[in-house]
Amino acid sequence: MRTRAQYLERLSKMNRNLYSNGEKIDRLDPRQEGALNVMGLTFDAAWDPASKDLCTATSHITGETINRFNHIHQNSEDLHKKQDMTRLLCNKVGGCIQRCMGIDAANAINAVSYEAQKSPKAKTAYHDNFLKWLEWFQSEDLVASCAQTDVKGERLKRPAEQIDPDMYVHVVEERSDGIVVRGSKVHISEASISDEILVVPNRALQKGEESYAVCFAVPSDYEGIKQVVHYHLNRKRDFFQKGIETGYTDSYIIFDDCFIPWERVFLCGEIQHGGIAALLFALFHRHSYSGCKPAALDYVIGMAGLAADINGIDKTHHVREMLSRLIMTGELGYAAGYTASALAKPEVYMPGMGMVPYGPGSYIPNSIYANVGRCLTGEAVFHEQEILCNIAGGMPATFPFEKDLMNPETKALLEKYLNRNPKIPIEDQIKFWLNFIDFGLSGYAGTSQYGNYHGGGSPIMEQIAITTQYDLESKKDIVREIAGMSQRKK
Amino acid sequence: MRTRAQYLERLSKMNRNLYSNGEKIDRLDPRQEGALNVMGLTFDAAWDPASKDLCTATSHITGETINRFNHIHQNSEDLHKKQDMTRLLCNKVGGCIQRCMGIDAANAINAVSYEAQKSPKAKTAYHDNFLKWLEWFQSEDLVASCAQTDVKGERLKRPAEQIDPDMYVHVVEERSDGIVVRGSKVHISEASISDEILVVPNRALQKGEESYAVCFAVPSDYEGIKQVVHYHLNRKRDFFQKGIETGYTDSYIIFDDCFIPWERVFLCGEIQHGGIAALLFALFHRHSYSGCKPAALDYVIGMAGLAADINGIDKTHHVREMLSRLIMTGELGYAAGYTASALAKPEVYMPGMGMVPYGPGSYIPNSIYANVGRCLTGEAVFHEQEILCNIAGGMPATFPFEKDLMNPETKALLEKYLNRNPKIPIEDQIKFWLNFIDFGLSGYAGTSQYGNYHGGGSPIMEQIAITTQYDLESKKDIVREIAGMSQRKK
Amino acid sequence: MRTRAQYLERLSKMNRNLYSNGEKIDRLDPRQEGALNVMGLTFDAAWDPASKDLCTATSHITGETINRFNHIHQNSEDLHKKQDMTRLLCNKVGGCIQRCMGIDAANAINAVSYEAQKSPKAKTAYHDNFLKWLEWFQSEDLVASCAQTDVKGERLKRPAEQIDPDMYVHVVEERSDGIVVRGSKVHISEASISDEILVVPNRALQKGEESYAVCFAVPSDYEGIKQVVHYHLNRKRDFFQKGIETGYTDSYIIFDDCFIPWERVFLCGEIQHGGIAALLFALFHRHSYSGCKPAALDYVIGMAGLAADINGIDKTHHVREMLSRLIMTGELGYAAGYTASALAKPEVYMPGMGMVPYGPGSYIPNSIYANVGRCLTGEAVFHEQEILCNIAGGMPATFPFEKDLMNPETKALLEKYLNRNPKIPIEDQIKFWLNFIDFGLSGYAGTSQYGNYHGGGSPIMEQIAITTQYDLESKKDIVREIAGMSQRKK
Amino acid sequence: MRTRAQYLERLSKMNRNLYSNGEKIDRLDPRQEGALNVMGLTFDAAWDPASKDLCTATSHITGETINRFNHIHQNSEDLHKKQDMTRLLCNKVGGCIQRCMGIDAANAINAVSYEAQKSPKAKTAYHDNFLKWLEWFQSEDLVASCAQTDVKGERLKRPAEQIDPDMYVHVVEERSDGIVVRGSKVHISEASISDEILVVPNRALQKGEESYAVCFAVPSDYEGIKQVVHYHLNRKRDFFQKGIETGYTDSYIIFDDCFIPWERVFLCGEIQHGGIAALLFALFHRHSYSGCKPAALDYVIGMAGLAADINGIDKTHHVREMLSRLIMTGELGYAAGYTASALAKPEVYMPGMGMVPYGPGSYIPNSIYANVGRCLTGEAVFHEQEILCNIAGGMPATFPFEKDLMNPETKALLEKYLNRNPKIPIEDQIKFWLNFIDFGLSGYAGTSQYGNYHGGGSPIMEQIAITTQYDLESKKDIVREIAGMSQRKK
Repeated sequence: MRTRAQYLERLSKMNRNLYSNGEKIDRLDPRQEGALNVMGLTFDAAWDPASKDLCTATSHITGETINRFNHIHQNSEDLHKKQDMTRLLCNKVGGCIQRCMGIDAANAINAVSYEAQKSPKAKTAYHDNFLKWLEWFQSEDLVASCAQTDVKGERLKRPAEQIDPDMYVHVVEERSDGIVVRGSKVHISEASISDEILVVPNRALQKGEESYAVCFAVPSDYEGIKQVVHYHLNRKRDFFQKGIETGYTDSYIIFDDCFIPWERVFLCGEIQHGGIAALLFALFHRHSYSGCKPAALDYVIGMAGLAADINGIDKTHHVREMLSRLIMTGELGYAAGYTASALAKPEVYMPGMGMVPYGPGSYIPNSIYANVGRCLTGEAVFHEQEILCNIAGGMPATFPFEKDLMNPETKALLEKYLNRNPKIPIEDQIKFWLNFIDFGLSGYAGTSQYGNYHGGGSPIMEQIAITTQYDLESKKDIVREIAGMSQRKK
Repeated sequence: MRTRAQYLERLSKMNRNLYSNGEKIDRLDPRQEGALNVMGLTFDAAWDPASKDLCTATSHITGETINRFNHIHQNSEDLHKKQDMTRLLCNKVGGCIQRCMGIDAANAINAVSYEAQKSPKAKTAYHDNFLKWLEWFQSEDLVASCAQTDVKGERLKRPAEQIDPDMYVHVVEERSDGIVVRGSKVHISEASISDEILVVPNRALQKGEESYAVCFAVPSDYEGIKQVVHYHLNRKRDFFQKGIETGYTDSYIIFDDCFIPWERVFLCGEIQHGGIAALLFALFHRHSYSGCKPAALDYVIGMAGLAADINGIDKTHHVREMLSRLIMTGELGYAAGYTASALAKPEVYMPGMGMVPYGPGSYIPNSIYANVGRCLTGEAVFHEQEILCNIAGGMPATFPFEKDLMNPETKALLEKYLNRNPKIPIEDQIKFWLNFIDFGLSGYAGTSQYGNYHGGGSPIMEQIAITTQYDLESKKDIVREIAGMSQRKK
Repeated sequence: MRTRAQYLERLSKMNRNLYSNGEKIDRLDPRQEGALNVMGLTFDAAWDPASKDLCTATSHITGETINRFNHIHQNSEDLHKKQDMTRLLCNKVGGCIQRCMGIDAANAINAVSYEAQKSPKAKTAYHDNFLKWLEWFQSEDLVASCAQTDVKGERLKRPAEQIDPDMYVHVVEERSDGIVVRGSKVHISEASISDEILVVPNRALQKGEESYAVCFAVPSDYEGIKQVVHYHLNRKRDFFQKGIETGYTDSYIIFDDCFIPWERVFLCGEIQHGGIAALLFALFHRHSYSGCKPAALDYVIGMAGLAADINGIDKTHHVREMLSRLIMTGELGYAAGYTASALAKPEVYMPGMGMVPYGPGSYIPNSIYANVGRCLTGEAVFHEQEILCNIAGGMPATFPFEKDLMNPETKALLEKYLNRNPKIPIEDQIKFWLNFIDFGLSGYAGTSQYGNYHGGGSPIMEQIAITTQYDLESKKDIVREIAGMSQRKK
Repeated sequence: MRTRAQYLERLSKMNRNLYSNGEKIDRLDPRQEGALNVMGLTFDAAWDPASKDLCTATSHITGETINRFNHIHQNSEDLHKKQDMTRLLCNKVGGCIQRCMGIDAANAINAVSYEAQKSPKAKTAYHDNFLKWLEWFQSEDLVASCAQTDVKGERLKRPAEQIDPDMYVHVVEERSDGIVVRGSKVHISEASISDEILVVPNRALQKGEESYAVCFAVPSDYEGIKQVVHYHLNRKRDFFQKGIETGYTDSYIIFDDCFIPWERVFLCGEIQHGGIAALLFALFHRHSYSGCKPAALDYVIGMAGLAADINGIDKTHHVREMLSRLIMTGELGYAAGYTASALAKPEVYMPGMGMVPYGPGSYIPNSIYANVGRCLTGEAVFHEQEILCNIAGGMPATFPFEKDLMNPETKALLEKYLNRNPKIPIEDQIKFWLNFIDFGLSGYAGTSQYGNYHGGGSPIMEQIAITTQYDLESKKDIVREIAGMSQRKK
């Protein structure tokens, strides 16, 4: 396992293919620092005695101790631990811990490549390739992003119906030594600070869309790849320092006729498995949200609780009622993930067939519970902001600038008039509100809300998953029986 | 274990102390038949090979096989099974299975009497008394109700502040051979078809309210007890028979200076344990709702699904979206209960102390998860009705009477004009809508909705439990750390 | 203008074509009494000095004083008065006043027949026919129902696509002296106690659906018509009398090849005007809801307020908050109707053309405001029930039967234990809860809720009307201007 | 009436008392430009033939034409026009027009000073003073802010209970020539670009709080006043220019023992009228929200509509449904304001007395309708953001920076991959998303949301106003009558 320093060291040596704000930037550019601070924690935590049990695992390939973010889930316990690790680490940064995409994509590809390799038409030994890549990835303790979301062009048209066929990443050429891919994946969190990128399809596919059924791994600074990076930073503080500086980045990853050698290809042309790869990454990722979203709620609850304390309204009925709403959302989200882990099996849902065994035996969370939990917490994002706004009052919207709080002509007057609770030091009150603004009233806040709402699949995607996979007929049978109706033909 | 017939046989011999609609009635009165049909199923299911694993347990006292409804939970597995048994049986009746109060009260008293007996001031050997009663209760396979809700008089006043001190059931006399109690417990489901009644306090108590801290068991036809019974029946059918006739009853149980011998007294004067008894029964009961409410949702989902089928709108987006809402509510409620079972411990929450060991080692569900689940599903009741109304359209509100559907002058015309889906036999459509009306547009429906909303504690009670017991300070600490505030004093 | 007695007298002489519960019944059958009590009030109020200004109008045909329920709106003031009359009268019965369909259908047909008669292809002098009918209708002070809702068969198919063409009422034969119609209109409120029935189409129509574009008036006991009647009654009281007995009825009106003479035909084959007739009746009717729904809220507010008083929680924050929700719904609904009246014009919306002059100058409420108001109040129905349930607690679900409250063996005990507020006489508390049950927990309640939700058009219908008719492009232009985008081509 | 240029000219000459970001700044500082652009429009519009009818009025003092923002409402028509002027102007800036506080405060003080002057104990001729000030203010066409919100210290304590008595602005000395005031008003929009500041109390007052019952006018650059200014700016554009640059400012106005001469004092010590002044400013201001909030919705609707167009999902059911929600909120808010204007009277609500005549005859909007409208639209703010987020998808959260869109190495690739709708020029799509980000995902956005939620009074304040002023007893009487209960004593 690597240290934070080793992680940064390797990044510093990568090729320059990041574009941001009109420039080409280094991976250790100051604008990436917030995000690097966060990712660094996933290395620290694996060495920290207080968290190493949760944050490491035993590789099922080598038997060695590895970072849990690079592990293939062998049982329900692994899934429980992934959920708890995610909540723990997110609680340290008050937001996304940013390394879950690698584990979620690896687990999805692990199962899909296994099944696809069985076919006599397989173009290469997908699963063997994957296991070799995985062993290297685990032992080097690398960080992977997952590139799933395509630009999609006209949204009501399928990949093959688009005027421009590149609206979904696809294979434009098959060679003896590998494939050439073209297209762009967007909203790819932390691709600019990752070592590797795992690419999976974006959706279910049908005949004629074979070229879109492609999974592979690629170094994030690879030739033929351009990343256009959007960084998200909190306002820099001049005087009132935070406990931790955080940030994150998103990339448009553009595959400009990028060549991928066969040993890094894990799926190529199998439309059914391509659709399952899309579904499975989403499923594992929604399960990850059962760790990070309760953590996000923990943070909101703490924020709401402190705002109420400072405002002196912590005992009022309407504040208690709002706190209970936040707790309900967070803990129902956690319970859904917990149950999804406990009821996990090496199975996937197939339309018309229900649940069927899939993959080499690694564990897949229960899809219904993973989806109901993600949907609940995803939809709650803006209501959480409303609760914070309600409890905080107008204060954060017009809070003085740091420099006015230090200007001798205004400092004492502002401290006199800002003080709302004599039991809490005024400096703590100031730091609290500045942090509150970062979380709820900044550009950083706005993008986080969009991420929390759409990341891992918009609520409508979970609703589709839920109604598609739920055994509706058995529920109708309950009614048919009680109402005395004639029974369905079995 | 008894059979349904043995259960009915014993009831038939009980003293007549039931008053309903101005008359004294027998326990096997036709108006009680619907409720008896339901309760009878809990006996059938314990013998039925398909369900006996779930519906029976091994007594921790005698080692004998007993009905699970009379069991003390020895571990998480027992709680998982209680939840699943409840969902299974509720699915057979499309509503409440009506025997959970006995198990929930017994588990609460088991823990409370154990702790109370430790005190040198204990007035009798509470726990020994309870175990003796329990062994008899288990081996005779009896049905118990739990009488918790007091009439409460002026609701913002405490028991001891009421003008009439009888607004909460209390001890009015202590004798050498037992105690005399007075007051009335209300909304007591199925007391009129139970063998025994377990009485527990309604709320937290303080000094000066010792007489209200009382737990005991009493036969439901005991001297000094009058039950005023409200029965709830579906409309009787003339032609279109249902698959099962169900019903339920509620009693006002009036203790008119009723004498209870010491061997049936499990708590008498210990205010702290009295409050815990109130809390624990509520907690176990809210956990039971994690079985019955998902079942209620199963029924609503089936109803909504069939209504959509008949109306031919099952594929429309807005119907799918509403179905996903119903599924989310039911399965999040289930997940909350599942997690409450998995994280159960022999512990209770004590104000100012957090979780502390309590009772003889029997398992108590995690309170936060039991409460968030119950609150979610309780609050959803009227929204579920709205969804059913939305999908059904106006049809159920003006559906013809059965006799018009059979009158030769109108039958053919009505069948012609009622038919909405040529693939579903018209008789099935008719039976469906009649059942739909029973469930959503009848007096039976109205009372069920109130029961589902308030039973086991109104949503506001769960919100109070949640905010009281949640570790809010640890969430504030997360924020203090990140915001760079000075830390709380530990 | 007639008196209540004259109204009943005329009904008593009508032909027997009502079928209910397997029998043929008279119009003055006891099961219709509740509904007749309500309708009777519309006659009383027109004579009552306290309400005559609101409840009468001056006929624009004869200049004579007529019941406002039979009036054609000449200006905004007329619409304001219709709204206020409706709220006033609904407040007397705690529900629907049941005579608005006549006025709403008459106003719609007045405009449509005027436009249709202009065409050289008009099959008869539609508007002349209508004015002649209207003059007679006004001077005789008759009651009209409006039959709009067809059975609709397979709901996603248009009228002409149905397997059975009779799923929408249509003309099956045109003769020299009139037309023959077939089909069934359903959910027709108060048709069984009305003198006349006005028939209008159910939806927009297209080429090939000419036979469905038909409007006419027919006596409600006419040859060729069968009504299958569903009556809705409150529970009869034995001891605790209410201030007024109310009820209502719905009919399936079956046109079994019913002949209509030309002088009663107001539209026949004009598909465009047929669609507008459907839209206009709905629009006028939704405007009527701006009177009755605020009244319904008045009733709910009063109920909630008294329940809180009796329960002694009227000062608590959460009750005040819930009351404010109810007030908001009612008064926003009223304001929407008020604004729809104030901005009324003799115009209708035409797809692609926006608002265009229509009809002989009579006033048509603004469609956007009428629709947003109806949608808001329609959607609130079940939430109102939740609020009532929340404030009332479990009491109404298990309230003793009247006879138990009078039985000497239980009366005193029940009165002791039911009493929650020493300042309110126990008899008043009892009457309150019995009335509460009628309103919220009875079969009557269930059907009312469905009526309040779907009547005048389900919320989804209003949403469609709103988005179809709203000038969305002008809103986009605001954004285009500010964002600096190139402007839309005008 | 002044021109925009004259307005700026006068500001340029004011004393420097603005502090922002650690500096003292000029009133024409670039950071104030966005706000000045907006305020300037209120001058342009009064001269513009297209809007002058709406944006000017005839002074009831001088009979001269004045800017409507400085007018005292003489009738309902004036209120209708204020609402429509506000909506019109807000539509030009996609946000707050920023001049309504002057008109709302002036109308409140006009009534209050009139009543207070009647008292023999009046300390000066309050109303005469006010009229003299007003005449000057109108003829000079000045801009006024209103300073109402105090810092409030410990929020559950009254002004006189605070440890520091300066937590609410109050009179610390009465002299023969005037008064000395101390304290700080916060969140005062546009005080840094106004000519005058009108000060009114923040809340109802009681005996012992006389020093807090004070109204006066003061130039915004007056001696003894410091303004700590928070400016809110959209991101500056390098390439893709917007149609208008907007911004706004808020001030902490600190009265550091500021002397006010008697001729500028309009209330001083009259606690009852002080409370009414607080209430009346809030009421007029909530009425202003019936203009600006529908405009805000117009903007959101346009934004949602264009996002749906670009994403190609404008015809889908769920988008139509969300659009209908937005339209409902905006138009119900408008209808509430319209009705509040139409039912306006020269009356205020007095606890225990209901509505009573108040002031010199100027018109006061109906309080119930003004409050229900403001509450509805205030509460909807975050839900509107959710709808925008839902329709937009993840795009705005990760949208490339302007400079990347112009960088030759990435420009063509980004334009290829960003294009979602071939019918809309890519430059328009880019400008749209950049503007979308300004509105929903920026610091500017966050503060706007807080302003829209809390400005004019948080939703809970309106709920309190509604339940306090509503005639609840008359609603209970409706129920008492129907339920047959004994009637309330009148």
